[in-house]
Amino acid sequence: MDEILASQLRELVTSRATAALGTLHSGAPYVSMVPFVMLSDASAFIVHVSRLAAHTKDMLAEPQVSLLIAEPEREGVSPLALPRVTVVGTARQLPTDSPQHALARRAYLARFPEAAPIFGLGDFSLFAITPTSVRWVAGFGQARSLTPASFARATGTPGIGA
Amino acid sequence: MDEILASQLRELVTSRATAALGTLHSGAPYVSMVPFVMLSDASAFIVHVSRLAAHTKDMLAEPQVSLLIAEPEREGVSPLALPRVTVVGTARQLPTDSPQHALARRAYLARFPEAAPIFGLGDFSLFAITPTSVRWVAGFGQARSLTPASFARATGTPGIGA
Repeated sequence: MDEILASQLRELVTSRATAALGTLHSGAPYVSMVPFVMLSDASAFIVHVSRLAAHTKDMLAEPQVSLLIAEPEREGVSPLALPRVTVVGTARQLPTDSPQHALARRAYLARFPEAAPIFGLGDFSLFAITPTSVRWVAGFGQARSLTPASFARATGTPGIGA
Repeated sequence: MDEILASQLRELVTSRATAALGTLHSGAPYVSMVPFVMLSDASAFIVHVSRLAAHTKDMLAEPQVSLLIAEPEREGVSPLALPRVTVVGTARQLPTDSPQHALARRAYLARFPEAAPIFGLGDFSLFAITPTSVRWVAGFGQARSLTPASFARATGTPGIGA
């Protein structure tokens, strides 16, 4: 992928604060809104969710999930032309005492400093969603599939964990 | 539901042009972006999709789907405070010669007049997504579940099909 395309994709996944999370709920898809941050090496997307929420129970029961990250609607721009990316991946709850948790927490709080008090609540936990495939629509009729490796090459900063 | 709440919900589902559609794809959730319009009696959400797209094949194979309609991110507003609604429902492809198709087409083109040429393409078709349950988050900590009937009372214009 050339640098212009890569920077468009990087902009999309780093500028948005929320994604649509698809989980499997009683055997059917369920889509909810989650704040998210991508780790800077693009190895995973981090979400911070309440165990009271349906999507959290869903991810614990069935780790296969999907995230949609989309540019906001704009006056005068056809919805079909809006850049968006679908990530299909595997969700894993991060144990509180793990290095992964510390790294994810740091990345999440750098993006959402106002979430700090929620980390004290106990019923919230961090999940890492590791991409297994990526479908990127850069605009009308401009769709391409990416492997996790090519997605990370395009959007990540190599060698920096968070 | 009081009139102020109802008008907030009505505004949310009628002002947005795009939703995140969750379908079941090879047994896992898959989230993609779709332009949509709600029928004015709130009985269904209409999407117009290409048979080349994964979500279309998914809906034909498994009609259980979910839609997320969310307010756009705003500077200075916590993502968790953004109003959004998750619709769980059943998707059905509308036969081209049916009255439902004519009604859905009229509603869709009233919302997206620029989509008219796509109706001539042949590989696009209309699906109606009929709600089976609705989860509405009006703001931080303000979540409520709605039946399709209470959702329609809050957001629909009774007696008008489209």
